[in-house]
Amino acid sequence: MRAYLDCYPCFLTQTLKTARLITSDERKIKDILDKVAASLPQINFAATPAEIGREVYRIIAQESGVEDPYHHLKKVWTAKALKLYPYLKKLIRSSSDPLFQAIKVAIVGNVIDFGVNRSFNLEEEVEQILHQPLVINHYQRFQETLKKAPQILYIADNAGETVFDRLLIEEMAKPVIYVVREKPVINDAVRQDAEEAGLAQVAQIISSGVDAPGTVLSLCHDEFRKIFISAEMIISKGQGNYEGLSEEKGPLFFLLKAKCEVIARELNVPLGSLLLI
Amino acid sequence: MRAYLDCYPCFLTQTLKTARLITSDERKIKDILDKVAASLPQINFAATPAEIGREVYRIIAQESGVEDPYHHLKKVWTAKALKLYPYLKKLIRSSSDPLFQAIKVAIVGNVIDFGVNRSFNLEEEVEQILHQPLVINHYQRFQETLKKAPQILYIADNAGETVFDRLLIEEMAKPVIYVVREKPVINDAVRQDAEEAGLAQVAQIISSGVDAPGTVLSLCHDEFRKIFISAEMIISKGQGNYEGLSEEKGPLFFLLKAKCEVIARELNVPLGSLLLI
Repeated sequence: MRAYLDCYPCFLTQTLKTARLITSDERKIKDILDKVAASLPQINFAATPAEIGREVYRIIAQESGVEDPYHHLKKVWTAKALKLYPYLKKLIRSSSDPLFQAIKVAIVGNVIDFGVNRSFNLEEEVEQILHQPLVINHYQRFQETLKKAPQILYIADNAGETVFDRLLIEEMAKPVIYVVREKPVINDAVRQDAEEAGLAQVAQIISSGVDAPGTVLSLCHDEFRKIFISAEMIISKGQGNYEGLSEEKGPLFFLLKAKCEVIARELNVPLGSLLLI
Repeated sequence: MRAYLDCYPCFLTQTLKTARLITSDERKIKDILDKVAASLPQINFAATPAEIGREVYRIIAQESGVEDPYHHLKKVWTAKALKLYPYLKKLIRSSSDPLFQAIKVAIVGNVIDFGVNRSFNLEEEVEQILHQPLVINHYQRFQETLKKAPQILYIADNAGETVFDRLLIEEMAKPVIYVVREKPVINDAVRQDAEEAGLAQVAQIISSGVDAPGTVLSLCHDEFRKIFISAEMIISKGQGNYEGLSEEKGPLFFLLKAKCEVIARELNVPLGSLLLI
């Protein structure tokens, strides 16, 4: 999908949030904000959110000299998620339908706010999110496709969420290629984040070649595109990957939360909906 | 108060909202958005939200050729509010403390969403907002000051809200100077809007000389500044006027809802709080 005009103010909000991780000097933050604002008129009307996001984060890195503003936070989130691992494993294994529960856990990973401090609160948050129904739920198709697929291509989203992905991968019990970003962009997982979350134990980790906050095939390297085209089951996590891949053909399953009005409108679901599409 | 950096994305959101009132042509809307985005780096670090808002709406008018994008909506809102007038009057007159009820009604006018279609729903919304407590409530000081003041300077905010102001003015039963913007900016009331709401029957209507979405004394004309400085009671409606006047000295009472995080943080109250300060 192409970016809606509503995405433009949102990119400034994201810039502000990221710049505040880099410095507390309001004048430096305004400089970064100004550079991004000045770049918006250059953006092509048909650009996708991932393409714009890539440009925005390139400007932030260039202006601040910080290549990976989320480096520290990603480590903290992964550590917090790893602490939840035994609890999540138990939730899945004690369920009457472990596969479905594992899918829901993977969606929880896309939703949960690791900013909450104590692991006690995080467990509460997991349970609260697990109680929400999936507004779109193509579980039957998922099951059927999984049964036949010899191998699964699993496209990651954020660091921390990676641990939740690992639990679904373990539950599917099939060979998995786990796809991360080539370079750091926002809080998206790169190889190191996936390895810290233990993904190397359960999947082959590859990069899509993308340094955008979403998977757009034209930005991916050839090797990934080949694997994508021939894949018999693809799982895509999160909104950024949905935005990039929603118009691609293939045995694609999207696991995400509709986190903004633009996506909710695009999918015709209430804001905040949990989705297996 | 000066603008927070959080205001910058918000100005783009406001631009988008306003541009969509002017045209449904997404390319034209992007042109307007681009012009405003390109102007943000030129904004002085110490600028107030009203000063930035003035510049933003100047660009929108210049780029679109439309001087008053809210013209039609303001008429609709005023008409809807006038329909509520008898109902609101009864709410006030049947209250055990009509003055306090009228203050709350005036705050409701700052909160209510006239986008709701049926007057039936609007009455429900009024009652629901009236049930919310004032998070800051300097009613006693208000009463004391009102008792002594020979005349009140009442600074208006939005069209439609004007009708709610009229009910408070009637309840105070003192001579009132009702202050509107000099030129149209967003949905703020100008002379015509105030007259349509019946304010000329209960107050002397003057303009502050301001064409910004908030009252900043340095942008006002001399005549208004003189009246402001010598006033013995000033009532200021809404967030825009609060932003412009919060650091001024004087017998100032602010009636507003904290509609955004920036103001809520500034005042140290929860987002959405109703306030009599």
